[in-house]
Amino acid sequence: MSEEFVLHERLRADTFHVSDMPLCRVLLMNDQRWPWLVLVPRQPDLRDLHNVEAADQPQLWQEIDKASRHLEQRFSAFKLNVAALGNLVPQLHIHVIARFEDDPAWPGPVWGVGEAMPYAREAADTLVRELAQALEGL
Amino acid sequence: MSEEFVLHERLRADTFHVSDMPLCRVLLMNDQRWPWLVLVPRQPDLRDLHNVEAADQPQLWQEIDKASRHLEQRFSAFKLNVAALGNLVPQLHIHVIARFEDDPAWPGPVWGVGEAMPYAREAADTLVRELAQALEGL
Repeated sequence: MSEEFVLHERLRADTFHVSDMPLCRVLLMNDQRWPWLVLVPRQPDLRDLHNVEAADQPQLWQEIDKASRHLEQRFSAFKLNVAALGNLVPQLHIHVIARFEDDPAWPGPVWGVGEAMPYAREAADTLVRELAQALEGL
Repeated sequence: MSEEFVLHERLRADTFHVSDMPLCRVLLMNDQRWPWLVLVPRQPDLRDLHNVEAADQPQLWQEIDKASRHLEQRFSAFKLNVAALGNLVPQLHIHVIARFEDDPAWPGPVWGVGEAMPYAREAADTLVRELAQALEGL
């Protein structure tokens, strides 16, 4: 058992760091096909959602809620997908994904569909800044 | 807006009714490839997870938690997948799925993979009874 939170290298490689909420690190998936946040509770050795301590559950719920509401409003999402899968990356992380009826995977799930379309650096910087401000303000 | 909870016909068609927890109807997906529960809050007009009232969130979390822990223990699951997608069925429902490293979709998600393998009637009856007892006892 490690003592410290260290972000899994696969999550680090696939995302941009948006901000830290009280419990979770908020990441933006580097795939412009979907507005897609990943929330990672900053605690060591969490694997499944039911490993989250009862005392932390309300905070986690609140952060998922905030991320969902923001994506819904900001991108006029048709639907939100919220999921803790973690079959490839064993560190607990929660996907919060804005879905649209004309998106490239609709109505199927997004995972494993085609190839990621990385953001241009400047577009990513702008979006990350905007998301960070919005999530802090919520 | 409807006033009463009515289970979506697609969920009804694809599942067996296991039991009612205080908030959710618990369904067993009729697909023996995975031990797969679906939790449906018995309230009208819920679509996304963030539509659940703050007062009901702890109960929903607790029920997801119970379902996850039971599947993990009963089936010696390698991993749990918990997801609210709802792209095809707009009524809020939460998938709680036991995953195994040798299951037919591993490590991908289960949705849309191959064809469901329905349970034999007797096997379904037995499993539903067993799950109902276990979830009531938790």
